[in-house]
Amino acid sequence: MTGQDRVGQSAGVVYRDTVRAEWVDYNGHLRDAFYMLIYSYATDALLDAIGLDAAQRDARGRSMYTLEAHLNYLREIREGATVRVDVRVLGYDAKRVRVYLEMVADEGGEPVSASEQLLLHVDRSGPRAAPFDADVLARVAALAAADAHFEPRHAARAITLTPARRA
Amino acid sequence: MTGQDRVGQSAGVVYRDTVRAEWVDYNGHLRDAFYMLIYSYATDALLDAIGLDAAQRDARGRSMYTLEAHLNYLREIREGATVRVDVRVLGYDAKRVRVYLEMVADEGGEPVSASEQLLLHVDRSGPRAAPFDADVLARVAALAAADAHFEPRHAARAITLTPARRA
Repeated sequence: MTGQDRVGQSAGVVYRDTVRAEWVDYNGHLRDAFYMLIYSYATDALLDAIGLDAAQRDARGRSMYTLEAHLNYLREIREGATVRVDVRVLGYDAKRVRVYLEMVADEGGEPVSASEQLLLHVDRSGPRAAPFDADVLARVAALAAADAHFEPRHAARAITLTPARRA
Repeated sequence: MTGQDRVGQSAGVVYRDTVRAEWVDYNGHLRDAFYMLIYSYATDALLDAIGLDAAQRDARGRSMYTLEAHLNYLREIREGATVRVDVRVLGYDAKRVRVYLEMVADEGGEPVSASEQLLLHVDRSGPRAAPFDADVLARVAALAAADAHFEPRHAARAITLTPARRA
């Protein structure tokens, strides 16, 4: 699935899932932490796409760790909703990748959530930070180039009480 | 548990848990999303403390929604580790509270993670944003006052690739 079917969507990595009963909280909607779990699975899909799937992680002795994540909760979603996450590479360096994940529900309308994350490439023998292998870096670079003109709505921002975000 | 036993810890809300086998990922450590789940349970403990436990949510027809969350992953933790989360109120207004959550493992040393979150008080009949009831607001204010001099290390920050956070 490349998402090339709809204008403005990523040409890159897409992850799909369905909101499970055990992910719903006392408010009757997807608990905040399980948005993050869906994003976590979506970053696994990114790893698959850049040559770091489970077999490659073992073969190379490498993996990726999440250093930082920022989530914006925009709309409630309920049990049984199908969700689609577009994963975009906003930037990278020799060891890290900055990603943007946007979630829509039931293939419709405005995002229900967005997340910005910073991931670190690690040598599992430490574990310690390690430069990407050349082929992995090339795939990261290709994804970044494909979304070079994408402007994330919910990135590079700090949490603040002011100005009020909802009146 | 008030945490008043150790200098520098919050006089406020504390949540404890143990890292469960189903929370561990292919890296052998607590998956990023399950740090957020522990924080989610910790904010539930905050709700209990301000007069919005399950019974009160039903009686008042109110609840809290997470608007935004920022997580910093500082150290790996493994299955079976006990974790303690200190929940501090950094700020608030009539409808929102800005909280800081800090997680230590096995009661020792430096935090393994920190999170800043913005929570919104909602009237479930909408659901729509609603001012806190007076008694709830008073409890929020008391928690904020108790930690008025606390200086969070990982708050009010945006994600960035530069400067490098790990060399």
